[in-house]
Parts: sequence; C-alpha cells; structure tokens
Amino acid sequence: MWMETKTEVEEASRSRASLSQRVLSGLLLCTGDMKHLDEYMQDKSFVLQLVVWGLRGVTRVILANNPLSGALILAALFWASPWQGLLGTLGILASTLTAVIMGQDSAEVSGGLHGFNGMLVSLLMGVFSSAGDWYWWLLLPVCLGSATCVFLFSGLSSVLDRWDLPVAVFPFNIIIILYLLCTGQDNPYFPHHPAVPPGALEPNGTKLFAVEVIRGIPLGVGQIFACGALGPSLLILGSVLLYSPLLAVHALLGSAVGTLAGLSMAVRHDSLYSGLSGFNGALGCMAIGGLFFTFSWRTHLLAIASAFLSAYADIALSNLLGTVGLPACSWAATLTATLMLLLTGSLAAYRIPIGQVKAPEHNLRSHSQWAAGNAAERESTDV
Amino acid sequence: MWMETKTEVEEASRSRASLSQRVLSGLLLCTGDMKHLDEYMQDKSFVLQLVVWGLRGVTRVILANNPLSGALILAALFWASPWQGLLGTLGILASTLTAVIMGQDSAEVSGGLHGFNGMLVSLLMGVFSSAGDWYWWLLLPVCLGSATCVFLFSGLSSVLDRWDLPVAVFPFNIIIILYLLCTGQDNPYFPHHPAVPPGALEPNGTKLFAVEVIRGIPLGVGQIFACGALGPSLLILGSVLLYSPLLAVHALLGSAVGTLAGLSMAVRHDSLYSGLSGFNGALGCMAIGGLFFTFSWRTHLLAIASAFLSAYADIALSNLLGTVGLPACSWAATLTATLMLLLTGSLAAYRIPIGQVKAPEHNLRSHSQWAAGNAAERESTDV
Amino acid sequence: MWMETKTEVEEASRSRASLSQRVLSGLLLCTGDMKHLDEYMQDKSFVLQLVVWGLRGVTRVILANNPLSGALILAALFWASPWQGLLGTLGILASTLTAVIMGQDSAEVSGGLHGFNGMLVSLLMGVFSSAGDWYWWLLLPVCLGSATCVFLFSGLSSVLDRWDLPVAVFPFNIIIILYLLCTGQDNPYFPHHPAVPPGALEPNGTKLFAVEVIRGIPLGVGQIFACGALGPSLLILGSVLLYSPLLAVHALLGSAVGTLAGLSMAVRHDSLYSGLSGFNGALGCMAIGGLFFTFSWRTHLLAIASAFLSAYADIALSNLLGTVGLPACSWAATLTATLMLLLTGSLAAYRIPIGQVKAPEHNLRSHSQWAAGNAAERESTDV
Repeated sequence: MWMETKTEVEEASRSRASLSQRVLSGLLLCTGDMKHLDEYMQDKSFVLQLVVWGLRGVTRVILANNPLSGALILAALFWASPWQGLLGTLGILASTLTAVIMGQDSAEVSGGLHGFNGMLVSLLMGVFSSAGDWYWWLLLPVCLGSATCVFLFSGLSSVLDRWDLPVAVFPFNIIIILYLLCTGQDNPYFPHHPAVPPGALEPNGTKLFAVEVIRGIPLGVGQIFACGALGPSLLILGSVLLYSPLLAVHALLGSAVGTLAGLSMAVRHDSLYSGLSGFNGALGCMAIGGLFFTFSWRTHLLAIASAFLSAYADIALSNLLGTVGLPACSWAATLTATLMLLLTGSLAAYRIPIGQVKAPEHNLRSHSQWAAGNAAERESTDV
Repeated sequence: MWMETKTEVEEASRSRASLSQRVLSGLLLCTGDMKHLDEYMQDKSFVLQLVVWGLRGVTRVILANNPLSGALILAALFWASPWQGLLGTLGILASTLTAVIMGQDSAEVSGGLHGFNGMLVSLLMGVFSSAGDWYWWLLLPVCLGSATCVFLFSGLSSVLDRWDLPVAVFPFNIIIILYLLCTGQDNPYFPHHPAVPPGALEPNGTKLFAVEVIRGIPLGVGQIFACGALGPSLLILGSVLLYSPLLAVHALLGSAVGTLAGLSMAVRHDSLYSGLSGFNGALGCMAIGGLFFTFSWRTHLLAIASAFLSAYADIALSNLLGTVGLPACSWAATLTATLMLLLTGSLAAYRIPIGQVKAPEHNLRSHSQWAAGNAAERESTDV
Repeated sequence: MWMETKTEVEEASRSRASLSQRVLSGLLLCTGDMKHLDEYMQDKSFVLQLVVWGLRGVTRVILANNPLSGALILAALFWASPWQGLLGTLGILASTLTAVIMGQDSAEVSGGLHGFNGMLVSLLMGVFSSAGDWYWWLLLPVCLGSATCVFLFSGLSSVLDRWDLPVAVFPFNIIIILYLLCTGQDNPYFPHHPAVPPGALEPNGTKLFAVEVIRGIPLGVGQIFACGALGPSLLILGSVLLYSPLLAVHALLGSAVGTLAGLSMAVRHDSLYSGLSGFNGALGCMAIGGLFFTFSWRTHLLAIASAFLSAYADIALSNLLGTVGLPACSWAATLTATLMLLLTGSLAAYRIPIGQVKAPEHNLRSHSQWAAGNAAERESTDV
C-alpha cells in the first residue's frame, strides 16, 4: 500500500511539475519576440494580421516587439484616457495601412515598423491640443500626420541604411514639430498649448518633495507614450517586463538617471514630478543596454553614459525649442542612440547588426552559452 | 479641266499640309530639352555659348531646360521690374562664369546647372532689400553671393551623389538665409525688410475674397522667381507650357494645392493673395509629377501628396524662421522633393535616374509607345 | 704662416658653419610634425607618452601637430590666465584618457586627435562661466563635457569617413552649445554670460579706432583658444610659426580677411577690437592654404575665398544664435572648410587625402622638388 501511495505522490508531483512546466513554457511563449506567432498568422484574414502588425507597432515605441505587450500598453492608454487611446489606435492603423497601400516592404510592415511613428504623432497631437478631448476635427491631422510618417520612414531608411542605423523615431519627431509649427498656438482650427522649457524659472521657490521625484521615475516610462498617470505607467512598465526583464530594468535605470540629470540642472519641479525629465534617459538607456549591443559590463556602463547624455541633451534641446514654444520630444534620445551606434573602437565589437536585433535575453542567452563554453574549456585545460 | 483643278487643290492642300507640318515641327524643335541646339552651338563664340548656358540656367529654376523658355522668363522679369531683371541676369552670369573659372564639369556648366542658384540669390536679395531699386551697392553682394553658390553646388553634389539626389536649390536657400542673417534688418549698408510669418495674426478680421485667392494660384508660379505681378506670372507659366504642357499643369495644380493648404491653416490673407502660399506646392508637385518620376496615376497621386507636404512644411518653416524675421524660401519644396526621391518600396520603380531626367513628355512618349506596343500585342493574341 | 692662418680661418669658419648647421638642424628637428619623436617615445612611461599626446592635441586646435608648439601654447594660456590654463590642461587630459579607456584607435590617440575638442570645450566653459575664476564646481562639467567629445568624435568619424572628411572641431561646437543651452543664463549651479551678436546696435555711435582694429588681427589668432590678450596671442602665433611659417602667414591673412568682412558688415566695435571677427577667417584660411590642399596660387586664392566665406558665415550664425544668447563658436570655419574639402572639379586635384596631411612645408618641398625637376627637364630639352 505504501508503494501505491508513493507512486501516487510521485505522479501527483510529476503532474504538478508538468503543469508548472507547461504554464512556464506557455508564459515563455508570450515573452520575447514571439516569432512563432508569425507562422501561425500566415493564413489568417487580413484584419487579424493587421491587428498583430499594429500591436507589434505599439511596442516598437519602447524598443520591444511583442503583440501581447502591445495589447497591455494599448489597454493602459485607454485606461489613462479613452480619447488618447482612440487617437493612438487610429494613428497606428492609418500609418500601417498607408505603408500597405504604398507598397512598402512586407517584412517591415508585419514587424510593426510602419506603425509606431504614426502612433506617437497621434498621441502627441492629442496631448498638445488645447481644444479638449473628443474634438473630432483633430482626427483629420491625426490621419494625415500618421500617413506622412511612412514617407519619412521610407526616405530616411535609404539614407541611414548606409551606416546600418535604424530610422527609429526620427519621423515622429520631425512630423510633430512641423505640425506644431504649422498650426501655431492661436490657430482657429487646431489650437495647442505651448511647451514650457524645463529651465524656466519657478514663480516662487517651492520646496522639492522627494516622494514626488521618486514617483516621477516610473512615470518617465509612461511618458514615452505621453501618459502621465501612475497606474497606466506601471502597466506599461509591466508590458516591457513581459517582453524582456533586462529592458525593463534599463528603462527604470534610465528614467532614474534622467531624473538625476534634471536635479543637477535645477529644472522645473513639474518636469521632475511628471516624469518628463526621465523619459529621454529611459529611451537612451534601453537602446544601448541590451537591445542594439550585447549585454556586458562595458555596454552596461555605456548604457548609463547614454542615459546621462540623452537626459542632458534633452534639457538643452527643450530649452532651445522652448524659446519658440516647441517640445523637444525624443530628439535627444534618438540622436544619442544613433551616435552610440556609430561608435568606432573596441566598443563597436559588441554591436548587433540591425537585421539581427532580438529581445535582449535572446542575445544574453547566446552570450552566456558562449561564456559557459569558454569556462568549460578552461576547466578541461586546467585538469 | 476638272482633273487639273483637282490636282491643283491636291497640291495646294499638300503644300498647306507641308507648311503646317513644317511650322509644327519647327514648334516642336523649340519645345522639350532642345538637345539639337547644343550640337549647333559647339563651334560658336564663347559669348554666344554663355548666353545659351545662362538661358538654360534660368529655366532650371522651374525644373525646365529650354533656352527659349529662359528668354521668355527673363523677358517676364524685365517686364515686372527692370531692376530685378538686371539683378537676375547679373546673378546668372556671375555664377556661371565662376563655375567656368573654377574648372567645374563642362557638361554641368553648359546644361545651366551652375546658373539658377545664383539667379535666385540675386532676385531674392533685390526683393528683400529695403534700399529701393537702382541701389548700385547691392551689385557687390549679388555678385559675391551668386559666385558662392558654385562652391555650395559643387560641395553638396559630392555628398548627394551617393544617393543619386539632385543638388536642386539647396545652395540658394543656404546663401540667402546667410546673407539675410549677416546683414540684419538695420544694417547701414544693406538694410532689408523682415519676412512676416504666414501664421501672424491679421490686425482685424477682414473678409477673404475668393477672386483674389484664385488669382493667387497663377501668381504662385510667378513667385518661384519672386515675381508678384499677374502678367509676368502668366508669361512664366507660358514658358513652362512651351517646355512641357505636363509640367505646366502640375505647376498650376501644385499652386492650387498650396493655396488650399494655406486656407486650411488660416494663414494671412496677404500670403494667399500674393501667391506665396502656392509656390512651394507648385515646386513640390512639378518635381514629382513627370520630371523625376515616370508619369502614371500612382506618381500623379504622389505628386499631389508631395504638393500638400511641401505646402504644409512651408507654412511650418515660415512660422519658425519668421520668429527671427527670415523667409523660408523654397526649403520646404526642396526637402520634400529630396525625401520623395529617397522613397523605397514599389514607388521607387517609377523613379528616373538623375542622369536621364528629360522633359516629362519625352518620358511619357516612351512610356505610351511601350503601352501601345503592349496593347497591340494583346490584340494580336486576342485574335 | 699665412697658410696656417688661412687654415685656421677656414677651420673656424667650418666649425662655425657646422655649429650653425647643427643649430639649424636642431631647430629643424623641432619644426613640422616631429615624427621622429614618436619613435623615441615608444618605450617611455605612459605618463610621459600622455604628456606628448596631450601637447600634440593642444596644437591640433590650430591645425598644427607639434609637441613643442603645444607647450608654447599652453604656456601662453597659463600666462593669459592660470585658471584657463588649468581648465584647458584638465580638458585635454580628461578626453585623452577617456579615449584610452574606451579603446579608441591608438594612432588617433597618440596623434592628439582625441584631445583638442575636450580642451576647447573646457576653455569655452571657463570663458562663458559667470561664476568667476577658481569656481571649483566647474571642474565637474569640464571633465564630463571633455569626455563626451570622444563619443562624438568617434561617432562622427564613422559618418564623415565616407567622404574622407576630418571630424575637425564639430564635437567641440556641438558640446559647448548643448552645455550652454542646458545650463541657461540663470542656472543656480553653473551660470554663464549670454553671447552678444555682432550685429547688435552700439549704444552710441562711437568712432572706430584704426589702431585697435589692426591690434585685433593678431588677437584673432589668440581667440582660437578663447584668449583675448595680445602677448599670449603673439606667443600662440609664434608657436604656429615654429610648426610651419606658411600656416602662420595664412593665420594672420585669414584674421585680416575676417576683420575686413566684419568692417564691411558694420559689426560691433568690440567684436573687431577683441579679435572675435577674425578667428573664424583665420581657421578657414589655414585649413585650405597649405594644410588640406597643396600650396599653389590657385589654392592660395581658394584659401582667401574660404576666409571670406568663413568670416561672413560666422557673422550670420552669430546673429542667429545670438537671438537665444548663444555664441557661434567655430561652426562657420568648420562648415566652410568641410565644404571646400568636398569641392569637385579641377580644384579637387590639389586636395591631400586626410591620411597624408602633414605640415604645409613638407607638401611644398615635395611640390618644389617636382617643379624643379620639371624646370631642369625643360632646360635640358631647350639645349
């Protein structure tokens, strides 16, 4: 009898193990780039494919590439503001469909590369509009602006390909600046708020609250999507965690670095509290720490340097563009990441070619296997 | 007798036909690129050659290449203002001669490629000068500025050749901005008017006159040469028609699109009336619709998109540069056309390499012959 | 007896000749690029090598490459202001060490190419700081800014290499503008003076003193190192003379051309007196006249044209950047020299590839040998 019991226990533990293993493997299927989904989607309808392309595009903004993360981020945006969620969705659809109509490379379209710039343009148009939510005329510039991003993406890629550089969010940054310049602050059809430079003097010397500053660090991750609420920001951070824990760590680290840079330059308190000081640092840190470079201690330090440079450059550009009421968007992080990708010398050996960029863990795994192989070799030679 | 009469009639009709044929072929000789003139000019004196190079240069401004059109345009400029005509002539001679002295490529010089930037610089210097007409000291910066264009053209072509892009009017745009910045508005020697941004508020809410707005559309073509009078503008449009009817249609279409864009952004009425809203749209539309791309329905739509993008970008840049009193010149159209030439995807197949760009009709003819050949083939297989 | 006397005299004159020859050859060893020093330094300690790299870097600012000239320039800076001398030394060490740590190309490091941008950033940070001398907190941005120059140098060289262009002082110009934008004028930690545009109106129409203007010409050479005192400026000019007399002549010529350009645009008197009008002209003239082009009458004229273009572009950019309180630094000269290096046509034949750029006399010598050879050949054929 005890034999039976033992077997039962063993079987139960086995089935439990296999269950947890299945859950784990199921979870693992949902992390990383989810390349297996592409094969599964091949014979599905166009609308379903478009949804996956769009969701991949949503995550491209935070340098990830995972449809589930995209769904979480979109949920976070709708949670923060349904109007902003609608604008973002419309932007991503408008630009992805424009790319399909214009006959852009299908691998790029299905990878979501033609969606994220349009989404950001739409979100920022919504944030800066001073006509209030549910101002339906705004859908006109949202659609046109998002569609124009495809032209810029396609044209810039011809130039940047020569140095194996990603187009990144250059189209978004160009289009949103042109839109804000075009309409002006007192436009009768599309009025918008002017951006306040971070170096502007405070009306009165108020005390800086440490808790608020620390709260600004996760908000910095949300500000990548122009989202200033804590809950949705944490959900966005969670979706990055789902794609790659390493990327999430670098996002938080970069945002903290950006806040530190803001403190050292005595920027407006609002800028620190809202996370606006942090988001360029976060982007600059994420791009280098794991995504475009193989993770190692040297590239980790480079990622921190990149975060500092992005954050300081953002303060500088915000002060410059703020003189004409324009925001600096993510110019600083985009330019800094581009610069880092151009580096020569011994650091260039860590760089991953654009065509082979995958989730950081994927690169780290192959790197640790290689390191383990090296260690085993060393052991065998030691004996 | 009736036999004779019949023969007489036949002969008369024949001679009439041959006369009209001769006139037509004579007219056709004057349209398009007039390549046959180059062979005829080879053994002529340097001065005569210089005149043809200069006249070709005049038409390069509106993306044409025809000495007769150039003579018509020059006549239009002298008609509008003799002083402006003189400045333009001086500018084109100064820059073409500088190119000869500097030993630039002779094919470029004889094609008029080293003249048009100098001409535009001279015209704009004259238009912005607040010292009045016949201020002879202005000839000094006119000659120097025009000559400098050759340096910029030569240097920029080294960079842009890598992507098979034309230098276009980048040198003009750079030099005129530098000149206006250099002198400033209150300069004791070369004072100039500040440019008023199109987004500036009207002093009082005056009514918009539809007739004036429509009048601004042909004026938009004239504004390419900084000419704001209707008669000369129509003559300039006629000279484009002589070179290529397709280009003339796109010029008017682009100017209309630019005016529409101006209306949608509620720009100053003056900007609409004077044609300043239209000329960037016209340039952007002409570059794509027929010149750098084979004409087809897809490229026609692309030309309209290019006109809209040029026009909106012009409003944006004018608002930006207007904050320091500078005009946006044709930066918007030049950048937009450059972007369109960089496009990848299925639209890139329509692009004509820079070295083979000819009059739009030439490309269209070869295209229709090819299409007719295809149709005949289909017919023969149908039987 | 007279025989002896004669021999004595002969011997004395011989020994005198050999002495003067030795002195001359010793002096000649100290001029030019001093390549022989590199071989001598190979087995010396790292600190000694670093000193030579740093001193080479100091001279790279004025397009020279000679450790002795570097020592003289550093002495001139300490003479003008010990604080500025300290900042410059710190900047050059910080950026050179960063380059070593980042694993940049050792030939570039030992040639001083990673030092000069950091040095200029440090000097300009010191000059613009309104916190006074010996404000020790300034060492923080000085070290960080200098270190960042290495990133920019490395990244930009990847791009510019495609056209065989030097990175020159682009990193310095970018970093100093970002730093000044970042801190703003009223920053509580790092306050700075705003730059006054040269086109700003004088408070009252004072008379222009010719002596002061002429004094501004040698000061223009000193202003390359942000040094506004006459003695140190002359010492800097002397150190250029030690490296290459031809370069020194072009420096003075360019500064004079810049002053002339300033006079023709009626800039502020202060700008002329302090040498600020001249230093961009000097840099633009030095780069073309002998360094990047083989010296000849055609390139000499090109150097003068380059000086004029640099000077006028500097006035234009200073007026533009002055509207937001920023200096134009050496943007004008750097952009102009880059443009000249891109020239096509018959002038491009005189250009020396970046990898073979040496002291102008070296190129001139090989050129005159070649010319002499040609002349001898012609003579022999004449007979």
